[in-house]
Amino acid sequence: MVLIRAGVAVLTEKGFSAVGIEEILSAAGVPKGSFYHYFASKEAFGLALIDAYADYFTRKLDRCFSDESRLPLDRLRGFFDDARDGMARFGYRRGCLVGNLGQEMGTLPESFRDRLSATLRDWEERTAGCLSAAQAAGQVAPGADCAALARFFWIGWEGAVLRAKLERGPAALDDFATGFLALLQPGSERGKPPCSRHC
Amino acid sequence: MVLIRAGVAVLTEKGFSAVGIEEILSAAGVPKGSFYHYFASKEAFGLALIDAYADYFTRKLDRCFSDESRLPLDRLRGFFDDARDGMARFGYRRGCLVGNLGQEMGTLPESFRDRLSATLRDWEERTAGCLSAAQAAGQVAPGADCAALARFFWIGWEGAVLRAKLERGPAALDDFATGFLALLQPGSERGKPPCSRHC
Repeated sequence: MVLIRAGVAVLTEKGFSAVGIEEILSAAGVPKGSFYHYFASKEAFGLALIDAYADYFTRKLDRCFSDESRLPLDRLRGFFDDARDGMARFGYRRGCLVGNLGQEMGTLPESFRDRLSATLRDWEERTAGCLSAAQAAGQVAPGADCAALARFFWIGWEGAVLRAKLERGPAALDDFATGFLALLQPGSERGKPPCSRHC
Repeated sequence: MVLIRAGVAVLTEKGFSAVGIEEILSAAGVPKGSFYHYFASKEAFGLALIDAYADYFTRKLDRCFSDESRLPLDRLRGFFDDARDGMARFGYRRGCLVGNLGQEMGTLPESFRDRLSATLRDWEERTAGCLSAAQAAGQVAPGADCAALARFFWIGWEGAVLRAKLERGPAALDDFATGFLALLQPGSERGKPPCSRHC
């Protein structure tokens, strides 16, 4: 639906508070009178945008993580590439709708909070699944806690998206991804010589 | 100055776009007419708030990192504790002014961008200094790149502050800090048995 598409585009670039319904309607080419035909309030519209963005992003993650032609960590690298390309396409002006709204929570309807947290937990679970597959393939240390690593990743990745927007370039995404991959692979991190865990 | 103090308080909790000058004047108890006596514009006021917050935070970092009574990594832990206490004091409603404005860059005056980036680079340099001291004390692997680690930390830490606000609790700060410390200490991370780098 055109209003959802325009809303997601505007909210990944700006924020919920900074944007009026009028701007979204105008971007969508929808007459002002018809908004309340579709949504009861700006809050209901916001929740619909979170759901639409969560669905879109979950499909992206599943597409990356189910690519059986690649080793699991290469699927994760595929997600990094996809995310970088996505930000580059819009000149690093658009970030993550969930991160933007999370940052704005101080001024948003309380109903957004659980929806945003649940979305991040969902992405973490899918990422933990990819890390577990990497562990089974010997790409992650056997004793590592994949759920904790996935949470660590998503906590920091939202910071990386924020920083990439601020710097208008991919360096923060690349630097965070590189650091995270180093954390997964004992013995190869930060330029240290390989060291067997069983030595 | 009372306007700066009120402005920083409001901007760490809400955002620049969501807040009118009136709200800040009212929080400060300053009559509306006197704002332009002090600042030429909302943009000039925003830059003054960034500078004030950067100064305040730099002093906090220096206080933590210069505590010679503790080992360097314990100074870093002291900063984590200080940051957690700071967020707890305001019920996890207030985050980082630099992270908030970075997230909002899509709607802010361009003059904010360099100021915010420079502030983060300054914090990274100070943090790299603490990590180098930890390295000299044998608490960080000898070959580790302390500048890269400090950048990795600040990219992710802004995400942790964002997530703590969203979750209204300290877990994201603690989880990111724990993961970062594990990254520094080869051989002790993620429940792995100690492993000498020289084996």
